[in-house]
Parts: sequence; C-alpha cells; structure tokens
Amino acid sequence: MPVGYTIFEKEEFMERVTRCKQKMAEKGLDVLYVSDPANMHYLTGYDAWSFYVPQCVVIALNEDEPIWIGRGIDAPSVPMTTYLKPENTYSYLDNYVHADDCHPMDFIADILRLRGFDDKVIGVEMDSFYFTASSYHLMCEHLPDAKIKSAGILVNWLRSIKSDKEIQLMREAAEIIDIVMGNALEMIEPGLRQHDLVAKIQYDQIYGTREIGGDYPAIIPLIPTGKNTSAPHLHWTHEPFRHNEVAVMELAACRHRYHCPMARTVFLGTPTNDLSDLARVAEEGIEAALDVIKAGVVCEDIETAFRETLARYGYVKSSRMGYSTGLNYPPDWGEHTISIRPGDKTILQPNMTLHVMPGLWSDSMGVEISQTIRVTEDGYEALGTIPRKLVVKD
Amino acid sequence: MPVGYTIFEKEEFMERVTRCKQKMAEKGLDVLYVSDPANMHYLTGYDAWSFYVPQCVVIALNEDEPIWIGRGIDAPSVPMTTYLKPENTYSYLDNYVHADDCHPMDFIADILRLRGFDDKVIGVEMDSFYFTASSYHLMCEHLPDAKIKSAGILVNWLRSIKSDKEIQLMREAAEIIDIVMGNALEMIEPGLRQHDLVAKIQYDQIYGTREIGGDYPAIIPLIPTGKNTSAPHLHWTHEPFRHNEVAVMELAACRHRYHCPMARTVFLGTPTNDLSDLARVAEEGIEAALDVIKAGVVCEDIETAFRETLARYGYVKSSRMGYSTGLNYPPDWGEHTISIRPGDKTILQPNMTLHVMPGLWSDSMGVEISQTIRVTEDGYEALGTIPRKLVVKD
Repeated sequence: MPVGYTIFEKEEFMERVTRCKQKMAEKGLDVLYVSDPANMHYLTGYDAWSFYVPQCVVIALNEDEPIWIGRGIDAPSVPMTTYLKPENTYSYLDNYVHADDCHPMDFIADILRLRGFDDKVIGVEMDSFYFTASSYHLMCEHLPDAKIKSAGILVNWLRSIKSDKEIQLMREAAEIIDIVMGNALEMIEPGLRQHDLVAKIQYDQIYGTREIGGDYPAIIPLIPTGKNTSAPHLHWTHEPFRHNEVAVMELAACRHRYHCPMARTVFLGTPTNDLSDLARVAEEGIEAALDVIKAGVVCEDIETAFRETLARYGYVKSSRMGYSTGLNYPPDWGEHTISIRPGDKTILQPNMTLHVMPGLWSDSMGVEISQTIRVTEDGYEALGTIPRKLVVKD
Repeated sequence: MPVGYTIFEKEEFMERVTRCKQKMAEKGLDVLYVSDPANMHYLTGYDAWSFYVPQCVVIALNEDEPIWIGRGIDAPSVPMTTYLKPENTYSYLDNYVHADDCHPMDFIADILRLRGFDDKVIGVEMDSFYFTASSYHLMCEHLPDAKIKSAGILVNWLRSIKSDKEIQLMREAAEIIDIVMGNALEMIEPGLRQHDLVAKIQYDQIYGTREIGGDYPAIIPLIPTGKNTSAPHLHWTHEPFRHNEVAVMELAACRHRYHCPMARTVFLGTPTNDLSDLARVAEEGIEAALDVIKAGVVCEDIETAFRETLARYGYVKSSRMGYSTGLNYPPDWGEHTISIRPGDKTILQPNMTLHVMPGLWSDSMGVEISQTIRVTEDGYEALGTIPRKLVVKD
C-alpha cells in the first residue's frame, strides 16, 4: 500500500534509506541530518508546507528507520504522509518559532543528544535552503563533541536516477504540461494582460487532466516579455502583451512533487531577422544536443554538441544549458546535481531525467526552447510533446 | 516616478536605507549583508525569482547607496527593478552555480574585500532562508579579518510599520482575497475534487479584479480537509470533498509582493456538536482578540483576550495566534517579527499589519477563522471583509 500522499510503498522508501546509508558509510558519516524538503520526502514521504521552520529527517547507520524532528503543529502530518514510527517523531513547542530567546535548533540538538548522536560524525546539507546559518552555528555550539561536516548533496545524488514509479509521475506531469503550454500558446495575444495568462496557466497546472490532478510547481510561471526576455527570472507584470514582442514561457507541471518543466517562446507579430536567426540557432541547437543523449554518454558532451551548433552561426553561450530535475519544493525544480555544461563528467544512465534548457539571451531579447527527457539505453524519451519551435502568432 | 515593478519612488527606498543605517549604527554594524529577498526588495525594489542562488544587497554606513551582488543572468533584472547604480552591481559567472569546486560566496567575498569591507563589522541574517550554512561558513573563512555577527532581523523590524503606499497595496490585496475566498466558499461542495477548487483559487488570486492584477502569494493554498484539518500545513489531495466533512481554507492574495491572508472554515453538511462548539469558541475568540487592538496596546494582550474567551469554554491553545504580515516571498508571508503570544511586548503602532489567526485544532479536526488588520489610533482596519463565521453548506 502506498505511503501517505505518495504512490510509493514502504519498501521503496527503505531501499532509498539503504542506499543512503551506503553513501554515508563511504563518506565516513555516522549520522545524516537531512533538511532539504525534497530529500526528507525522498527518504520518508514527508510532505507538507512546513519547511519555513526548522525541521529534519535524521538517518543514522545504527538505526533501522529515519527520525523526524519538527514543529508541534506539523507533527500530525508525519503519520499522514510517512511510514515513520511514533517513537521516531519529535516536535518542539510553538514558543520556539521566530523567537528572540530560543531557537528550534536548541530543541533539535537535545534530541540528537538524547538519541546518542552527540559524539558522532554528523553530515549536514550545507547548501540546503532551509538549513540556515543559524541552525548550523547553533548545532556546532550545542554539540561540541560531535564532528559536524558537509555531507555534500549526497541524497540529491541518490535522487538522480529515477525508479519506474517516479518516471510514471513525471510522465503524468508531462501530460499536464502539454495541456498547460498548449492552452497558453493558444491564449497569448497582444492586448491580453500578462497576469490573465498566468491565471489560466495556474488553473491548468492544478486542474490537470480529467483523470489526474496537478500539484504546485516549485517555481511560479516565468513569462519574461519584450525587453524583459533578457532577464529570465523576472516576475510577470500587469501590462498587456504587445504586438511585435517576444514572450518566453518557462513553466512546469507537477505530480506528487515530481516536475516536468518546459520552455517555449512565442512572437506576437512578424519576427525581426535578429529574432528569427536567434530562434533558428536555438531550434537547431537543442536538436543537436538531444541527438547526443543516451546512456553511457558524458554529460558535458551534450553541451559540446550545442556549442558547436551555435559556433557555426557565430553565437556563444556561457551559462549552463540544463540540469537534472524531478522531485522538488520551492524555490527550485532543479536537483542541484547534474549540470549540462563543460566539466560535468556525469555518465548518463537510464532513468536520469534532465531539463535540457538552452536559453539564448542577447542584450535585448531571449529565446528559450527546452525539453525534459528521460535517458534511455539508446537515446531519450521526451517528456512533453509540444514541438520545439519558435511559435509565431501574427 | 516609481522604481521598476514597484509603486515606490526612490525617495521612499532611500528613507528605508537611512532608517536601516540608523539601526546598524545602534548595533555597531559597519556593513549589513541582506540576503532575505523581502528585505532586498524593501531596500532596493529588487524583485525576481532568483533567490534559489546566493544573492545579496549590501548596505554600508560609508556608502550612499546599496550594492547588489548576484548571478550573471539575473543582473539584467537589477536596472529593471531597482534604482541602483551600475557601479554598485556585481555578478558572478554561471560556473559558480551548483558547482562542486567553487561557491558563489567565493566571488561575493572577493567583492566585499574589493569594496573595503573585509576588516569591518559585518551583520548577517543568520536565519534568512537563503543564507545557507555554506554561505555563512565560507564568508567567515574568506574574510578572517572581518567581524561577522548576527544582525538579528533588523530589516524585518523596519518593515513592521507600513507606509501609506504599502497599506494601499495591502488594501488592493484585500480586495482580491475577498473575491478569492468568496468564490471558493461558493464553489466548494461534496464531490468536487480538491485540486479543482485549488485551480479556481489560483486563477482568482492572479486574475485579481477588473482593474488590478494579482501576484503569487508566498504560500500555496492550504486546504486541509476532514481529519487532515488537524494538520494545517498538509498539501491538497486529488480526492473529492466529502459530505459531513470540515474544510479549512487558508489563502492569501498578493499585490506587488504585499499580502492579505485570510482563513475560513466550511462544513459540508450538518456540523457535529463538537465542531459547532469549537467554531463558536473560535468566532467569539477572534472578536475578543480584535476588540483589544489599537495603537498603544501591548501585543500579548491580544492573546490574553483570546485565551480568556477560550478558558470560559474550557479550551486551551498553545500555539501562537498570529503574526505580522505584508511584503514577502516564498516560503512564508509572515514577517518573523511580531508574534501574537504570551511574552510578546511589542507596543502596537499605527500601520502595523497583523494576521490575527487563532487556529483551533483538536486531535481530529480544526477550525481557522482569521482576520488581517491594520492597527489604527483607536482600533483596527479590517483588510478583507468576508464574515468571520463558520460557513455551513448543507
């Protein structure tokens, strides 16, 4: 029977915990303090909008099952979304929340001591968004006999190869993103206010299909428009779309926290030569990049193929052109493991999932045409089927 | 002329910077490293979904204007959303992003040295979500001659009293939340799938009114239902609402990152006596709490009035019952300053804005009826006008 809100059975979670412990042992860690909500979810199923207060899942080599520590009012979410035992759930009182005179880590460190971890080697996720400087500093202060060291992104790496059930969720997200992007491309036109389009996008993201409902993506719809396309992470405005402007839409759909992102670019009028040229390069470039993908290929070779295509047209791109994606929470649907760029020596393996996302930005405009894919033995499976072309609406 | 995406003029931003410098001087800080995106926005207008990589605004006592440091592809967002000078904008290359062998703080620390801050007292936001343990650790390592210390939540406190223009945005958000909640209360019924309701809510949040468009709230719609109402931060499911179940909706609307949250509870059938009792206590309790509010009152007195009402009915509540709200980014629309709970000695002042949010949870159900308010000289202004009552739909 699936655990909580997920489609996964306890066996799959425990298999993940086992792999996690193997990596911990290799790194010389006795204990792993997991504060990234996607990693907490991956190991236990825990799933709630509670990451704005300190919380964690603790994996210890000498414990069979994970431990959850968090805020009292979130403790009821644990039995509803995880397989964890009641004796492995600890929660702090509300007076620790956003207080001057105490911090949740005061409580958490006490629990770590109670469970006998205070003289162990404890790995922490130093760049997890929700493991703040304060949490780290106080953990070091409260547990002077522990050796607290960076675990790198150990659990993120475990997530990089998906199980068949995870792929199933990403395929469902792909079904939804096709609807979302298809409707958005149909609806966008000069005079439409930007936020009216976003309203429809968010509706479609959550409504999903007749059969399957959507969940919230980890990033809001990004729809830089006109001159703003050179700034890919700007928010939408309340201005109308204008004739003879380019609009980029970088969107995703999400099923049970598993994402399928997609970016497309639309021109509302007759494209300038500059834009047509940039779009043709983007179109050819992504095809060249995708053609390289299959199990056994070194990740950076994807970028080489893209860069060589660009070079033939005299273009240069310096930012990375994609990353691993799948399970995540705000503020990012990337997994922070694989980056498609020079120097990334990751060997592609079946069921790795990447957002191949070669945004091309000039000073005054940008074109983004992307594809989320699953690596297969002899190529890739496209997740999302909207044609990889500049859309022109005249 | 308003700066960038905001409605504020440069003078208002500079006045905020001046107040910030006064507080820095009081705390003995030469330099303030601001990494909370709401605080970055408050001081400069900077506004983009770029907080998933290290970025900051730096305020120095000996510099007239703030400095922005962030990722290269986000640098074009700076002139579009802020008044900052080009010579006060620094950005790092993309190879620093999610890399094994280097970290954005390596670059940022170099800039801090370049600007002569490496032997200064630098205040940092130790509990800002996006100032990770790694950023802190590396800053200390790279700047051994600086004195790096906690600035507390200095800028958050500056935000606690709103200007008239900020209040205007919150009133606009209130107009939108009335539409959002009104439609949601009308639409919810047994058989409706939870995510279909959320789709409509998200549509309304962004569509706004005929005149004003919405922006994304910092928290997704929280609609715990049935037994899940005892776990207030659970995500929606894809199950239908059921007859004779209670559903809580904690939602917000947002204008230019300024929020108006609202929680209401609906019962789909004939309430049990237990629920009716809990609802009556919640209804009376929030009125008692609101009646206390006016400038000059000590914040904890709001909670006392609420608690005394509860006590008359034999109820006890241990979690806090509200907090300051306004400008924010995911994952929280609270400002982390004022908490309505015993021990909070904040003296209420005109234009403080609070989400008075006395959720009552039993083991098996919960009732939330809330009110966002602006403190006035002799009482409060309600932001959002949906009646503060349990809604029964039979």
